[in-house]
Amino acid sequence: MTLNVLNKVNEPKDLRELSNEELNTLASEIREVLIKKVTTTGGHFGPNLGMVEATIAMHYVFNSPIDKIVYDVSHQSYIHKMLTGRKNAFINPEEYKSITGYTSQHESPHDFFTIGHTSTSVSLACGLAKARDVKGGNENIIAVIGDGSLSGGEAYEGLNNAVESGNNIIVVVNDNDMSIAPNYGGLYQNLKELRETEGKAENNFFKALGFEYHFVKDGHNIQDLIETFKKVKDADHPVLVHMYTVKGKGHEEAEKDKEPFHYIMPFDPKTNKPRAMNTNETYASAASKFLLEKAKKDKKIVAITAATPAPLGFIPFREELKDQYVDVGIAEEHAVAFASAMASQGAKPVAAFFSTFLQRSYDQLSHDLAINNNPAVILVYGGGITGADVTHHGLFDIPLISNIPNIVYLAPTNKEEYLAMLDWGIEQDKHPVVIRVPNTAVVSTGVKVEADFSNLNKFVKVKEGSKVAIIGLGSFYGLGEKVYNKVKEELGIDATLINPRFISGIDEELLNELSENHDLVITLEDGLLDGGFGEKISRFYGAKDMKVLNFGATKEFTNSVPLKELYERYHLTEELIVEDIKNALK
Amino acid sequence: MTLNVLNKVNEPKDLRELSNEELNTLASEIREVLIKKVTTTGGHFGPNLGMVEATIAMHYVFNSPIDKIVYDVSHQSYIHKMLTGRKNAFINPEEYKSITGYTSQHESPHDFFTIGHTSTSVSLACGLAKARDVKGGNENIIAVIGDGSLSGGEAYEGLNNAVESGNNIIVVVNDNDMSIAPNYGGLYQNLKELRETEGKAENNFFKALGFEYHFVKDGHNIQDLIETFKKVKDADHPVLVHMYTVKGKGHEEAEKDKEPFHYIMPFDPKTNKPRAMNTNETYASAASKFLLEKAKKDKKIVAITAATPAPLGFIPFREELKDQYVDVGIAEEHAVAFASAMASQGAKPVAAFFSTFLQRSYDQLSHDLAINNNPAVILVYGGGITGADVTHHGLFDIPLISNIPNIVYLAPTNKEEYLAMLDWGIEQDKHPVVIRVPNTAVVSTGVKVEADFSNLNKFVKVKEGSKVAIIGLGSFYGLGEKVYNKVKEELGIDATLINPRFISGIDEELLNELSENHDLVITLEDGLLDGGFGEKISRFYGAKDMKVLNFGATKEFTNSVPLKELYERYHLTEELIVEDIKNALK
Repeated sequence: MTLNVLNKVNEPKDLRELSNEELNTLASEIREVLIKKVTTTGGHFGPNLGMVEATIAMHYVFNSPIDKIVYDVSHQSYIHKMLTGRKNAFINPEEYKSITGYTSQHESPHDFFTIGHTSTSVSLACGLAKARDVKGGNENIIAVIGDGSLSGGEAYEGLNNAVESGNNIIVVVNDNDMSIAPNYGGLYQNLKELRETEGKAENNFFKALGFEYHFVKDGHNIQDLIETFKKVKDADHPVLVHMYTVKGKGHEEAEKDKEPFHYIMPFDPKTNKPRAMNTNETYASAASKFLLEKAKKDKKIVAITAATPAPLGFIPFREELKDQYVDVGIAEEHAVAFASAMASQGAKPVAAFFSTFLQRSYDQLSHDLAINNNPAVILVYGGGITGADVTHHGLFDIPLISNIPNIVYLAPTNKEEYLAMLDWGIEQDKHPVVIRVPNTAVVSTGVKVEADFSNLNKFVKVKEGSKVAIIGLGSFYGLGEKVYNKVKEELGIDATLINPRFISGIDEELLNELSENHDLVITLEDGLLDGGFGEKISRFYGAKDMKVLNFGATKEFTNSVPLKELYERYHLTEELIVEDIKNALK
Repeated sequence: MTLNVLNKVNEPKDLRELSNEELNTLASEIREVLIKKVTTTGGHFGPNLGMVEATIAMHYVFNSPIDKIVYDVSHQSYIHKMLTGRKNAFINPEEYKSITGYTSQHESPHDFFTIGHTSTSVSLACGLAKARDVKGGNENIIAVIGDGSLSGGEAYEGLNNAVESGNNIIVVVNDNDMSIAPNYGGLYQNLKELRETEGKAENNFFKALGFEYHFVKDGHNIQDLIETFKKVKDADHPVLVHMYTVKGKGHEEAEKDKEPFHYIMPFDPKTNKPRAMNTNETYASAASKFLLEKAKKDKKIVAITAATPAPLGFIPFREELKDQYVDVGIAEEHAVAFASAMASQGAKPVAAFFSTFLQRSYDQLSHDLAINNNPAVILVYGGGITGADVTHHGLFDIPLISNIPNIVYLAPTNKEEYLAMLDWGIEQDKHPVVIRVPNTAVVSTGVKVEADFSNLNKFVKVKEGSKVAIIGLGSFYGLGEKVYNKVKEELGIDATLINPRFISGIDEELLNELSENHDLVITLEDGLLDGGFGEKISRFYGAKDMKVLNFGATKEFTNSVPLKELYERYHLTEELIVEDIKNALK
């Protein structure tokens, strides 16, 4: 790779020394670096390929970090990082891991926030602008939003407020005609009209909201972009630049097949084949296959996703049962209310979300769903302790969901139990049912579970023993089995092993029974201890003669810490747990 | 009162027997009934006065409950109730209390949801429409939204999705140029343009989103409304009717002074004076007065509210320091992200919310604020166990907020402590600080508190005793004092009394000390037990020789149950608590 121009760029001001030709060469060099790096490490591929020229042009015109650029989701900030002192993390394979995949104020003075969820940039920019105004500054504040983020309610609240700021706020809409999945919603029809008329369509969402509107028809033409950004720079009122870019620009396959190239696992850019292929069944694929078969026989079943059909296994469902499938775009609030209303009329909605994104929908789970007690089914994926980026933890869904009245929150421990819960949830009509899908490789017993979960909060004693009772919730039931074995081996105790199945309530009868011949109950949960499942058991035994130890994650934000390290830190290995049991029994 | 026409109307179909003149008379009669009833009982006054004619026209045209009307917030549904079999609850003072202030599917087949939060109606209507479509029906689905609800993100997500439904959905926008407070945001500028041009303005937010758009210039002209609703009835695609109404219509003072007449306490319609006047200082008035004085000396302080400046005491602040005050409209998501970004730049935002509405902003508290650890201050009002409507509980903020890492959640026990916490929160720059304002009449010691709260999670022992330790959190500290006295009186025990001050963490050192000479710790919290404060204490003592009793609310939704009854039910009186202490000490 020859990087003649990139070698000259160490900070944004270096861009202003380059000729037009050099700027174009820079774009090619950056694209080459990007393709090599992201196909090696994995990451957001299409979104960054689409932002090469626009990022160069922004940093050419604006004076970062005095002028402040906020990237929505910040999954499109790779080029920004390359231009603001972090290019070696992309060029040099040994430094690939030295940066995070999102913006971070701890990484660079050119980054202002740690961001990973969508639709927040305009509100954050409004805050930066207001702080500027009360402090008496005059810098530019730029929010870069697009790639699907405009469908989220927070983005709209931000836009609606931005126009009232009465001062400089520049919103750059990166319109690539895609979300993670194809876009959905009226706004995206309007963007299409605007693209087709080069910004001149009569209906204009942004002008209707009060923005001064600018259109850039080729978001890969650096000179056009520079010209437009120069026009809006130092505006004393809110303006919006709508630019059309191609997601995956410069990589043939990624341009053609945008959805799978949004976020990629490492692959070989010559063959476009993944470097490692996981063709195993997942909980997501098993559930959506089950659901598809069931839905073919029952038109009332409707599957709902919020812009993540692919990772949640819903592509086959979308292809086969178009009328029974709705991807609402990035709009989790809408999705939950939508499902609730459907269920109120005897339809059978099943809505699937990642734990971290369902956080956007707490009030809808409580107000729109639980208070109305409608029998919708919600699937929560990715809930658990992981080594994820700080913005993508699945730690919080148990405190969030299990403490809402009326919701039955279930924790299956294997595939057959999961499918039985799913089936029951769909067919019953009494409760909103949420299922926390295990965040592990599929565990399968091969034996169909024919359970009725209507008898709420009934825990199952899998092994009946004495002295120590182990309650292993959901994906930590396997850890419970390991602890059970080790307790037997090391302490010679035949413990009791319990699969609680329910997160949202406790089995008081069973817990009282345990008092007869147990001294210690331990709870294992794959999530935050605070506000979680184990604490309910501790409260129950509070004034009784039973010792309780709760195992789970400590309340803290961690950023890309290896899972093994977290398990050690939180005492979530059978060795450490058995040590703690020994101490408690002393 | 002569109710010649209203007497003839028992269900919607009776409207279709009336002449135009009788329909107009009906509107007058309804208005008279409404004014008498609401000035006697209190309730949503202006919003319902504005909806008299529109509701009559909707029920004249549509065939409820086959056709389904969903009222946003449902605070404008009084006339709907009168026309659907519940008029006696408005006419007959003895039946005034027989209905709730919102729609309820348990009250009438014409109501489809229990609703009390804003901006949900379009998403709910989308769900009803999808259920209709998969079941093969052909009824009309109508969402009635307005009175400020359009600024909430969920409303936008709903509108954006509604246009993709491909079938009948009718959105009726009741544009009265007001939210609870005056509206804010670009959309409301566009509504103004549309009103001024009788719907013909070039910029049209709804057309930009893809709606077929209809404008009704006089939303109090029943015949015009009927004509328009007839036009859109049975549409096979999404349509939107924008009608202009006057909030408070037909009551001179309410028309003139819209904000205080949005929701009223009982008043005398002859003098417009409240039947009972509360001129006492409240926590809200004390805090905003303190904040105003402080902000006059420090331009970096910015107060933020989300459409509720009046009940939270911010009217004087708004009037005196316009540039340091932002009401974002009903947009809690935006408000929190906005505050976070401001705080990141050294400005000092203080954002105030009701507990029940802050539920809409969980992800912003976590992702936009806490992960970024920006030192914004958030005030939570109305948190606690109350006899409220099911949609307006303040029960959930402790599980919601206290389990988010990095957030310091404080619980003052009196005015001086509250103001000290507020002052500290504004001046420190290390943490996001949330303060749970006591949900009681003001308790004042008259002694200024000069505490530094930087030493996190430091509980205060107010009385040092033995055997029993009482931890009284925030607004339940007073209950703790009563229990302390009763324990002394009845059990002869000099207990320890603790003001924990912090909700978001526990004082392990102090709790360990208690182990030396206490047998029982009790926790008292004015909120949900599940996921709350007390459970953290129970977990801490889980494997130690200490008994713990947690007092607070059971996980359930209650609807307008008198507070006294709830206190009995949850054992939250000193008598019942001391009984429980006796049993635990046995």
